[in-house]
Order: sequence, then structure tokens, then C-alpha cells
Amino acid sequence: MISTIQTVLNSEIPLTNAIGIKVDEYTGNAIKISAPLENNINHKNTAFGGSLYSVSVLAGWSLIYALLKENNLQGHIVIQESNIQYLNPVTGKIVAESQFMDELQINRFLKQYERKGIARIKLSSIIKQGAKNAVVFNGSYVVHL
Amino acid sequence: MISTIQTVLNSEIPLTNAIGIKVDEYTGNAIKISAPLENNINHKNTAFGGSLYSVSVLAGWSLIYALLKENNLQGHIVIQESNIQYLNPVTGKIVAESQFMDELQINRFLKQYERKGIARIKLSSIIKQGAKNAVVFNGSYVVHL
Repeated sequence: MISTIQTVLNSEIPLTNAIGIKVDEYTGNAIKISAPLENNINHKNTAFGGSLYSVSVLAGWSLIYALLKENNLQGHIVIQESNIQYLNPVTGKIVAESQFMDELQINRFLKQYERKGIARIKLSSIIKQGAKNAVVFNGSYVVHL
Repeated sequence: MISTIQTVLNSEIPLTNAIGIKVDEYTGNAIKISAPLENNINHKNTAFGGSLYSVSVLAGWSLIYALLKENNLQGHIVIQESNIQYLNPVTGKIVAESQFMDELQINRFLKQYERKGIARIKLSSIIKQGAKNAVVFNGSYVVHL
């Protein structure tokens, strides 16, 4: 699944190559997506806010993509709205982790999608700097046929 | 001012080269920043959400940068929090426009910054698709010495 998602990201969103997106880990209900600082550095030698956003939004996107794949479902995944808080600068490798809230969230989403061909799901992505949260991203995604 | 901002963006945030960021217009209280669709395309042949975010956040950043320059002020401009709504897909050139609310907003910001060496400012960026709003971005920026 990790290499499938990696290939999809690099081929369907070419900017992910410039960002240096890597799918690091996938456990079935959580995913880690990373990018090197070098590609995404800013004037303060920390990670550019637009890069932190991109890694965060793609973590949620990839988690939904994997869920659809595992359930043999097709669909377009679109970000509809999001909020991002930059709490601490990121001075090393950017790693965004996104996970489903619980089984209930997954099951509700799948049921709605299979019945209506469109469903919404809210996911958070967290980027840490050491032990502290550096970036908190909350996104509303829509999946449609 | 346009070429100064262009140079700063390309040299201090290297990813802006991959995105293809161009400073198109600057009027003193508004700025237009653009990027070609090709560099920023996604799986649906529309603009990638992370790119739309990046162009939007940089429009606000650049407007503040220009304001500081015009007032012979130095400072670091950092995005602290933002919200973005994707209302319609963008199927052509990405153009984000950001402007100050009014003179009062500018004067309050400058006064606070000159007194305290740190000041906050909220700016919106709008990306249109034809006559319709495609992306509405609201950002809170902090400027500090």
C-alpha cells in the first residue's frame, strides 16, 4: 500500500516530487507522510508554511485513498475546507501523521459513500517538532464518484 | 517593488520556483500573485489544494513585505493560523489577490509594530475562477523583529 500511494502522489500531483513527499508508514488507520527540510526551506531556515500545509493535506488525502483501496472502492478525494495552526517552527524533516478518529468514523463514512456515492470526512494531521506539536491541521474532505 | 518581491520569494523560498510563482501586480494596497496550472496540476486536472494554499499565503506575505519595505522597516513575517475554503476547482492560471482592508488596518499595524517590535495582521486572499470565487483564504500573520 505504501508504494502504491507513493506512486499515485508522484504521478498525479507532480509538485509532490519538488516537495520530496515520502510515504513513510501506514498501519491501516494511520499514515505518516514526510518531506525533507531542504526542499521546503524558507527565509528563516525553517519549513515554508505552504509546504507544511501540503504535507498535512496530503497525509489526510492518502489515508482516505488507502481506505478506499482496501475496500475496493473508487472515488475522487477533494479537500473542501481546512484550518491550520502553526504553533512552533519546524527545523528538520517534516513528518505529518494523520489517523482516523475511531472505527465508528470509518464505518459511517463507508456506509454513506456506498449508499450515496458522496461522503464527507474530517481528518486532522499533526506535525511534531521534537515532542511538541508544531502544526495542527484540520481538514474536511469530500469523496465522490 | 514587483521585481524585488519576485527575487525575495524565489531566493528565500526555493519551492516558489517549482510552483512557478510570479508577482503580477502591486498597487500599494493590493497585490496579485500567480502560478501556472501545469506546475500545480492534480489528479483531476485542476489545481492542487496545496498549491492554491501556497499562492494564497504568499500573496498575503508579499503584501506585508511590500508594506514594510515602503516604510523602511525590517522584520520577519510569519503565518500563524489560517483557514482556506475551496469553493470551486481552478482549471487555469492560479491568481491570488490580497489587499489591506483599509488605511486604518495599515496604520494600526504599523503603529503597533513600531512601538512593540511585534504586530499581528489578518489578510484574506481570493482566487477566482472566471467571475466566481474559487478559493477564499484567511490568514493571521505575525511580524516581528
